[in-house]
Amino acid sequence: MKTRVLFAAAALVLSGAAHAQFQKPEDAVRYRQSAFAVMGNHFSRIGAMVQGKAPFDAKVAQENAAIVLMMSKLPWAGFTPETERIKSRAKPELWAEMDKVRAGADKMMKAVADLEATTRTGNLDAIKKSFGETAATCKACHDAYRE
Amino acid sequence: MKTRVLFAAAALVLSGAAHAQFQKPEDAVRYRQSAFAVMGNHFSRIGAMVQGKAPFDAKVAQENAAIVLMMSKLPWAGFTPETERIKSRAKPELWAEMDKVRAGADKMMKAVADLEATTRTGNLDAIKKSFGETAATCKACHDAYRE
Repeated sequence: MKTRVLFAAAALVLSGAAHAQFQKPEDAVRYRQSAFAVMGNHFSRIGAMVQGKAPFDAKVAQENAAIVLMMSKLPWAGFTPETERIKSRAKPELWAEMDKVRAGADKMMKAVADLEATTRTGNLDAIKKSFGETAATCKACHDAYRE
Repeated sequence: MKTRVLFAAAALVLSGAAHAQFQKPEDAVRYRQSAFAVMGNHFSRIGAMVQGKAPFDAKVAQENAAIVLMMSKLPWAGFTPETERIKSRAKPELWAEMDKVRAGADKMMKAVADLEATTRTGNLDAIKKSFGETAATCKACHDAYRE
């Protein structure tokens, strides 16, 4: 419980004062899933470029990275203790290992911030590298904590 | 059909080059619903302040408005012609009146941009007025086109 309270407090700091408020636990789940969905879509758009499936356009990459950056700060506020009982793809381990989840979230947000900065250089090789590093931070938590 | 193609083209312009791409129509529906959900949550946070249900904090209002502003540009790309057959709360009228939907979306985005600018002044009365005007643009389309 103490860990969860700490995580909730951390989520407030993470997402700044613009953190979300929820009337019901279901709203918190929907919110975090929505933020992840928007983030994933725009991250994939950068992915298509670094994988050569879409033409590289530095401006497009930067615009998508800006959306990913904003979204990366949001979902954490939706992992409130009350949402543990709501059915989602979150594994039981997520609630039991909040310190690790928190560290993973920090790592992801840092990687995304680096990716966004890298897209502003317009250097495709650097973007590829940064994209891969970011994708690894997504995968680490998905593998450990998502069904 | 012509209207729909025009709307799809407009969506590209609306959301800039950072528009979303979708593998399946279901993904487009999920994307637009997610963008609306994140937007609605942060818009409500400003609402709580203008309605006196949360203490007014100009910085918090501005942070939330920045998220609303970014989200306001995104959902339109998810109203692709292929999604008409996917079950959602979109009424049949939405697909039949795309010109009006497009005009409503423009109006909403303009109101949101005004709201975001207003939050940067820190003037609560002005924010209240701008919030009300923005909420009216949300309601207009929800009343007409959402179950």
